[in-house]
Amino acid sequence: MSFIEKLLNAARKNGSLVCVGLDPDPSQMPEGVSVLEFNKAIIDATAGLVCAYKPNFAFYEALGADGFEILKATIDYIPDGIPVIGDAKRSDIGNTARAYARAIFEELGCDAATVNPYLGYDTIEPFMQYEDRGIFILCRTSNPGAADFQGLRLGDNASTLFEIVAKKAELWNEYGNIGLVVGATCPEELKLIRQQHPDMLLLIPGIGAQGGDLEKAVRYGVDSCGEKAIINSSRQIIYASKGKDFAAAAAFAAAQLRDRINGYRNK
Amino acid sequence: MSFIEKLLNAARKNGSLVCVGLDPDPSQMPEGVSVLEFNKAIIDATAGLVCAYKPNFAFYEALGADGFEILKATIDYIPDGIPVIGDAKRSDIGNTARAYARAIFEELGCDAATVNPYLGYDTIEPFMQYEDRGIFILCRTSNPGAADFQGLRLGDNASTLFEIVAKKAELWNEYGNIGLVVGATCPEELKLIRQQHPDMLLLIPGIGAQGGDLEKAVRYGVDSCGEKAIINSSRQIIYASKGKDFAAAAAFAAAQLRDRINGYRNK
Repeated sequence: MSFIEKLLNAARKNGSLVCVGLDPDPSQMPEGVSVLEFNKAIIDATAGLVCAYKPNFAFYEALGADGFEILKATIDYIPDGIPVIGDAKRSDIGNTARAYARAIFEELGCDAATVNPYLGYDTIEPFMQYEDRGIFILCRTSNPGAADFQGLRLGDNASTLFEIVAKKAELWNEYGNIGLVVGATCPEELKLIRQQHPDMLLLIPGIGAQGGDLEKAVRYGVDSCGEKAIINSSRQIIYASKGKDFAAAAAFAAAQLRDRINGYRNK
Repeated sequence: MSFIEKLLNAARKNGSLVCVGLDPDPSQMPEGVSVLEFNKAIIDATAGLVCAYKPNFAFYEALGADGFEILKATIDYIPDGIPVIGDAKRSDIGNTARAYARAIFEELGCDAATVNPYLGYDTIEPFMQYEDRGIFILCRTSNPGAADFQGLRLGDNASTLFEIVAKKAELWNEYGNIGLVVGATCPEELKLIRQQHPDMLLLIPGIGAQGGDLEKAVRYGVDSCGEKAIINSSRQIIYASKGKDFAAAAAFAAAQLRDRINGYRNK
């Protein structure tokens, strides 16, 4: 089964476009709960409410030597029908990109990965070769610094860099396994990308703690069938409570987000 | 001591601009030698011939759960006077970039890190805050795909994206700890960057297996004192022999490269 089929199946089964970002930060977690226990409790509580999980590798690497094992155990714990997006934002030259793709897809067993396009085609190609996995190319990111370079107008027809990246991504998409990352914090850019790429899968971070507009993220992000948009929330869900009720609070926040999204989807 | 002082000290003491890339690929290594044994033997054999070491994290991540420990043990083994550049090419939004910086500088103890500029200022800033460490921003990389985006020209003043990245990097360089990565495979671009940024530290990959022109890399890359260029070679040095003499062969290759570079430096 391809990544996109797995994703659409999970989204339809759970009636949800919510992706939960599994970004463990010990300073935000309830006391006396290990990172793996925390992740497992969040997964148990939310697995029926999401279309995907997205662990960001930085938070595991910051845990030191145990980080890799905790990340792998977390990924292994996620139920089979729910895809895992390895948010690694890797970027390197061909033979090195191959090593990263092997690490993310083979060692860790992720269903998809995020990659940074600055190095061009040969940094993407080794990931694409895993035809049953997904690749999300950073296009217009959700952070304030995104405007520094992504918003520059370049080339013969003065398109913005992020539009050029999106066009190249579509051109490169021979196996149909490439999607784009476009932040909810920049709704006009999201609208533009969806208009220019009506069928591509979009991973949309930036709602919640980053302040993106949820209604616009949904209405501009989905395709003509109300699908192919993955709305990520990390901190707003997993840190909904710092008490013993953290898992129940996460489930409540995820269900609430799912319902709000579905309200906007059906408009 | 700042990263730049540590680097210049090592380069002057060893009379070398050579950086050895510690990129272990078990398929290229001598049989019966573990990755850590391999790295230690390479370090023992070359520590008097280099100005820095640069482990690329991809090769360690591809080793799975042991990768982090092997990377950390490798970094710990490098003699104190020789700086370690963590080649991670990370890129993420502010709070996540902080986690990556902590992983690379605190957990692993690297003296410097490579970062990808696509996400803009807030992906760089958390690294910069470690004022005694170095940050190398990818500017014009050595791979074929580099032209896809880095070579695009801005509409109004016709600067290329990589030149704009370099200008921003210099603007952001309030602590003096930012350098640039510019590939030896694009000597004209290297010449341009050195002309525009006479004092910045340049990390130059792409000679050896990637086919960059060594003489141009040195002559265009160094500053007016013949310094501030770090010429990286990985495969050409560490895989100089697949036999029992691999460490001696690596030392010979590193010494030869050092001498060729010094010949061009003094022209």
